[in-house]
Amino acid sequence: MNIVDIIIKKREGNKLSNEEIAYFVKGVTDGSLPDYQISVFLMAAFLKKLDAEETACLTMEMAQSGGMFDFSQVEGFKADKHSTGGVADTTTLILAPLVASVGVPVIKMSGRGLGFSGGTIDKLESIPGFQVDVSEKEAIEFAKNSNIVLMSQSDNLTPADKKLYALRDVTGTVDSIPLIAASIMSKKIAAGADGIVLDVKCGSGAFMQDLASAETLASTMVEMGRHVGRKVTAVISAMDQPLGMNIGNSLEVIEAIEVLKGNVGGDLLEVSLTLGAYMLLMAGRVDSVEKGKYLLQHHIKNGMGLEKLRELLVQQGGNPAIIEDYSLLPLSSSKKIVFAQGDGYLNNMNTALIGRASLESGAGRGYKEQPLDFGAGIIMKKRLGDFVKTGEPLAEIFASSDKKCISAAEYMQQAITIGEEKEPLPPLILKII
Amino acid sequence: MNIVDIIIKKREGNKLSNEEIAYFVKGVTDGSLPDYQISVFLMAAFLKKLDAEETACLTMEMAQSGGMFDFSQVEGFKADKHSTGGVADTTTLILAPLVASVGVPVIKMSGRGLGFSGGTIDKLESIPGFQVDVSEKEAIEFAKNSNIVLMSQSDNLTPADKKLYALRDVTGTVDSIPLIAASIMSKKIAAGADGIVLDVKCGSGAFMQDLASAETLASTMVEMGRHVGRKVTAVISAMDQPLGMNIGNSLEVIEAIEVLKGNVGGDLLEVSLTLGAYMLLMAGRVDSVEKGKYLLQHHIKNGMGLEKLRELLVQQGGNPAIIEDYSLLPLSSSKKIVFAQGDGYLNNMNTALIGRASLESGAGRGYKEQPLDFGAGIIMKKRLGDFVKTGEPLAEIFASSDKKCISAAEYMQQAITIGEEKEPLPPLILKII
Repeated sequence: MNIVDIIIKKREGNKLSNEEIAYFVKGVTDGSLPDYQISVFLMAAFLKKLDAEETACLTMEMAQSGGMFDFSQVEGFKADKHSTGGVADTTTLILAPLVASVGVPVIKMSGRGLGFSGGTIDKLESIPGFQVDVSEKEAIEFAKNSNIVLMSQSDNLTPADKKLYALRDVTGTVDSIPLIAASIMSKKIAAGADGIVLDVKCGSGAFMQDLASAETLASTMVEMGRHVGRKVTAVISAMDQPLGMNIGNSLEVIEAIEVLKGNVGGDLLEVSLTLGAYMLLMAGRVDSVEKGKYLLQHHIKNGMGLEKLRELLVQQGGNPAIIEDYSLLPLSSSKKIVFAQGDGYLNNMNTALIGRASLESGAGRGYKEQPLDFGAGIIMKKRLGDFVKTGEPLAEIFASSDKKCISAAEYMQQAITIGEEKEPLPPLILKII
Repeated sequence: MNIVDIIIKKREGNKLSNEEIAYFVKGVTDGSLPDYQISVFLMAAFLKKLDAEETACLTMEMAQSGGMFDFSQVEGFKADKHSTGGVADTTTLILAPLVASVGVPVIKMSGRGLGFSGGTIDKLESIPGFQVDVSEKEAIEFAKNSNIVLMSQSDNLTPADKKLYALRDVTGTVDSIPLIAASIMSKKIAAGADGIVLDVKCGSGAFMQDLASAETLASTMVEMGRHVGRKVTAVISAMDQPLGMNIGNSLEVIEAIEVLKGNVGGDLLEVSLTLGAYMLLMAGRVDSVEKGKYLLQHHIKNGMGLEKLRELLVQQGGNPAIIEDYSLLPLSSSKKIVFAQGDGYLNNMNTALIGRASLESGAGRGYKEQPLDFGAGIIMKKRLGDFVKTGEPLAEIFASSDKKCISAAEYMQQAITIGEEKEPLPPLILKII
């Protein structure tokens, strides 16, 4: 087999055999293929597409390119979730303790963020002492004791995906549905969960900006997961405004705690309950989504979700006192308020620009090695459809310098459109696949 | 400007600006762009095409990526020619001395061959003592004295093209008409000729296998050359059988001398006269192609073409005695005759397979650094349309070992189809553009 022949076959729009895809992934993993041939394969696959079978094969080959985690020693149905990424999207920190507190084990590997704000791992690292590096053995122990582990992806997880992901980023081949689907699902499959709930974001702050592409991505992943014997449900949810009110690392930890305390509701709670309920449903813990949501909500009321978070913090070295005293978490010293520039209804938030504002504040990474400012970010004061008056605060920005605050504020102002007539709000949950 | 944005722009099928193409070529030339981004750009350009303006811009940027030769000190209109490559295609060794003997200076830079047989430079190197490395200054002196220089491409000629050509070869992006056109024309433009006659081969032994692609390639190059103020004519000629009877390096030198001696006619002579006549026409030396052909033929009869070849050999250190004594040229010791396997008309020659046979004999390079066997090759005994009888010789193969002869003979047998009914012969000159 020859890589140039494989590239030409795909370039001509022909379907690759499983052997050809396996040959490609092996060459990526063992370093025998040079970056230029890997990248050209990706561009050919981008432009000429991969069909469902090719994508499933690519996924499985990538999943098996490194260690495959085995959590069979942990009793019960292990549920995992993944979000395609949004702004103020901190559902994991809410639903993982809730679902675990109901008795369904959650062993979740997460990544660091690139772009508007940190990933789950970055948010957890904003908690003093919290250790995200957990071995497979420790994870099994933790899960047996507490039903919950939130850990960073092992270096040995899907090395082929790591390599492809890094090259896609610098070769204009990121936004391909088959490549995105294979990247996500290979990691989830290698991470060993029995079932996966996917939160596919759709809207101005998401990768998929229209429902049709979100549906295609969701169906591709669902079909692929089922193809390899995992239960998969995809929830398509709106990302036309930040999901919660807080954007940033420590700021999102605080909001998650507030939700678990029952102090905060809204969209962030609603999406967390929906995703969590589907996890309970696939685990057989409940027989309907409604019952799942009710049960999780009950575990907010009785404090068991919050207690599970405390248990997680203690287990992984984080200071549990942050739950009562948020001042133990970092908060950046410079602050700037963004005010409404007119009277009217808050009709549009360009959420990508709000993400960009968060990046400017220091809460996100512009490049892979960029250090994060855990205490930076934005607290939103309004939601879509709200009536605002000139001079009313729209958001508070926190950063390490006034310069960063000003830069973030400029993006915030650009992001927001105020109109005279109130426009209809899009639904929050767009589709279940 | 950012290379990823440029890649994405082309990936989406948008037209690149001159600045964007210049940025790309600059990054290729100065080494600031990594191979993987260069290669992905090439695949995006391959699949989403480059239009005439983009191709012209790419060509000029590549032409200017290294030294631009200036032969203005040589009086008169300098004519160059280029063939897209065929089997037994040794027109340069015939037409360059003929055209120069008529008074039109020919300063031609050529490359080494990759594939079925050597390039012009390889053929010249099969002549004992012949020096192909000539500096710009020497070339000017030579041209002033003799009107003829045949030299290898300087290392400093179009470095961007060298880089792109090498990457295309290993990334499945070779057969793109805009990329081929830009590669050829950038070298020709940098080589400084006032006018260029292009011999675009079409048929089973050529890169362009059908007339439509050959026409597209030819028009693209003609338009591009005119765009930058050079006279360009393209001759599309058939490559459905070897052009001459000899394939190989020293073997092709011998056939060229035989043509110049007036001993050999046929297709090789006809194409050489046609290309040469267009060179004379664009130089203003004649006012019609017919007169040009007549004049060149006259210079065969009166021996002035052959004398010009002798002058070239003496000028560049080659032994002129080879003209009278072919035994001074290398000839490989093993020989094998390929016989007709049946009675009938020679209706089809798969010329690519004949090229492959030549490669197997040792006359061509399978990879870039492979040493050539200058004395290896094939002497064809028949042409399309000939009636042959079982056991009649079709070709003689020369190689350094019986094993190589046998391997070459196998490809030769596969290449030839004998039929009961004589099929019509395709025309030799298909189109002038």
